[in-house]
Amino acid sequence: VQSRRSALVVGFDPFLEWMPASLARELERECAALHGSAGQDGSGLEGAGQPRPLRQAELLQAAADAVVRWGEGLIEACGPHACAIKLQLACFEQLGGPGWEAARQVARAAQAAGLLVIADAKRGDVASTMQGYGRALFGPVPLPGGVAVAGLECDAATLHPYMGEDSLQALAPWLDAGRGVFVLVHTSNPSAGQLQGQRLADGTSVAERVAELVARWSARWRGRCGYGAVGAVVGATYPEAVRRLRARLPGVWMLLPGVGAQGGRLEDLPPAFDGAGLGAVVAVSRQILGAWRQAPEQDWRQACRQQARELREALEMIRHGR
Amino acid sequence: VQSRRSALVVGFDPFLEWMPASLARELERECAALHGSAGQDGSGLEGAGQPRPLRQAELLQAAADAVVRWGEGLIEACGPHACAIKLQLACFEQLGGPGWEAARQVARAAQAAGLLVIADAKRGDVASTMQGYGRALFGPVPLPGGVAVAGLECDAATLHPYMGEDSLQALAPWLDAGRGVFVLVHTSNPSAGQLQGQRLADGTSVAERVAELVARWSARWRGRCGYGAVGAVVGATYPEAVRRLRARLPGVWMLLPGVGAQGGRLEDLPPAFDGAGLGAVVAVSRQILGAWRQAPEQDWRQACRQQARELREALEMIRHGR
Repeated sequence: VQSRRSALVVGFDPFLEWMPASLARELERECAALHGSAGQDGSGLEGAGQPRPLRQAELLQAAADAVVRWGEGLIEACGPHACAIKLQLACFEQLGGPGWEAARQVARAAQAAGLLVIADAKRGDVASTMQGYGRALFGPVPLPGGVAVAGLECDAATLHPYMGEDSLQALAPWLDAGRGVFVLVHTSNPSAGQLQGQRLADGTSVAERVAELVARWSARWRGRCGYGAVGAVVGATYPEAVRRLRARLPGVWMLLPGVGAQGGRLEDLPPAFDGAGLGAVVAVSRQILGAWRQAPEQDWRQACRQQARELREALEMIRHGR
Repeated sequence: VQSRRSALVVGFDPFLEWMPASLARELERECAALHGSAGQDGSGLEGAGQPRPLRQAELLQAAADAVVRWGEGLIEACGPHACAIKLQLACFEQLGGPGWEAARQVARAAQAAGLLVIADAKRGDVASTMQGYGRALFGPVPLPGGVAVAGLECDAATLHPYMGEDSLQALAPWLDAGRGVFVLVHTSNPSAGQLQGQRLADGTSVAERVAELVARWSARWRGRCGYGAVGAVVGATYPEAVRRLRARLPGVWMLLPGVGAQGGRLEDLPPAFDGAGLGAVVAVSRQILGAWRQAPEQDWRQACRQQARELREALEMIRHGR
């Protein structure tokens, strides 16, 4: 945030429906060609719209390649205005093995551009399984015979708190080595309060209790700026929660999603930042990814860059209390 | 459960450390050959144990292929004694794109053997993202131009409740079509109680409140046996919780992990089943996967089959109240 002078996290949720028109047309042509050629040899179709396995692999690869082009263009356009990119893993997993490898490629492109990479994975499991997720998301992955391969090599990942600190504890070796996590505290969605808003016997809410746990965990991995490696996800769609939780999250980075399409507003976010303009990063996905729709005659990257620049500038005003 | 006369779910958590010795030796030879050949051409090593990208892809593929052989052997050996297989996605994700495709292959082998496939994914996100996970785990995945490809095509998946019913609601089309989910209610791990055991103002625990939500959700998708498509994960390591939560989960399938290595005992589980021997399935991973260690001179599949047979028979005794 300090060196890049930006608290903006570009959210890359590559739902194919949101793909810029020029990239989507290109992919559509490729899919039609693959699908058509599968039909022409008389053996490619197993029911309406269902290609056979060979074509399936080629179609997934074509879609994954398009997602990589999209991600690389986005990073080139918006990277200079952001501190990090957040990859929505669901969108990559849709595309199977090629999708997972696409996430790896986009992560590498982002890091080459100086961005941190946050895997929006929302994992949370028992310790042994979390070790597997740690390897998958952060790496390396040991293979038999003393060989190791890379994982996704992300810098941080999002985490569910429901199973308690076992889920976090298993990631300790990665936190020791400088990686980070963001634990879900108060999420941005409409039904967030259904469980997170329940009041405990002492009057605190479930989200507030989770915030206390996160603050305690984060203190174990405190960095130079006074903030720890365990952050908190707090939806920008609940500004009152942002304000209240800030007080329960001393030394904890807040990752604030929900600005734009989900209804969160930048002007509600000043309480998330400390006096030095630190303590929070703001993740924006659809508002940046969909910016090209406002100017369809322009290069899509221009529109995304312009949107990212405006968001960054607005956040810099907030960070510096202006 | 009825047609296969088994409440046993074989948990396939393919941590490479647990791989049967014969398969592990084979993989170790392949890794050594790939790694060695990378070294011999003088350009294959970028620091100790870190192969270059080309070798990385080959190593991941070799490991993923070994996992498929392991899974196919396990299904052949244990399938007849089980109703379902539970795939621990963390283990597959460790192996990147090839790992994800390995999960697909193992899922197909399991379904060909008559087993249901539960993706132990523990996802939970906002509605739009959950639609992505639904496509990834259940399929199909629409591509531009009216083409669709398969997802993992699992029959059920595990789900985090922290974000409330938005996470479930987005999966409604798949539940309507006969797929299922198991929502985490009371997990099997040591720190489960840290959040799940918190008492609300009215005296119920967080886990009990989640159970009430799950029971309400499940009633929307009730099947012929009186049980719904939304199940609950309840750790067999907390027998008292199993008993208490059963009463709050009418018409809800319980998925009970934690038997064996985690300390849960079959003899504590009768309260999970109804008078007809339905209402619960028991997931066992390490006790089956590691059975070959007890008889290392035998074919590993024999040992796993024997363990699965014994577990199934013990569960049949419980199901029928004997």
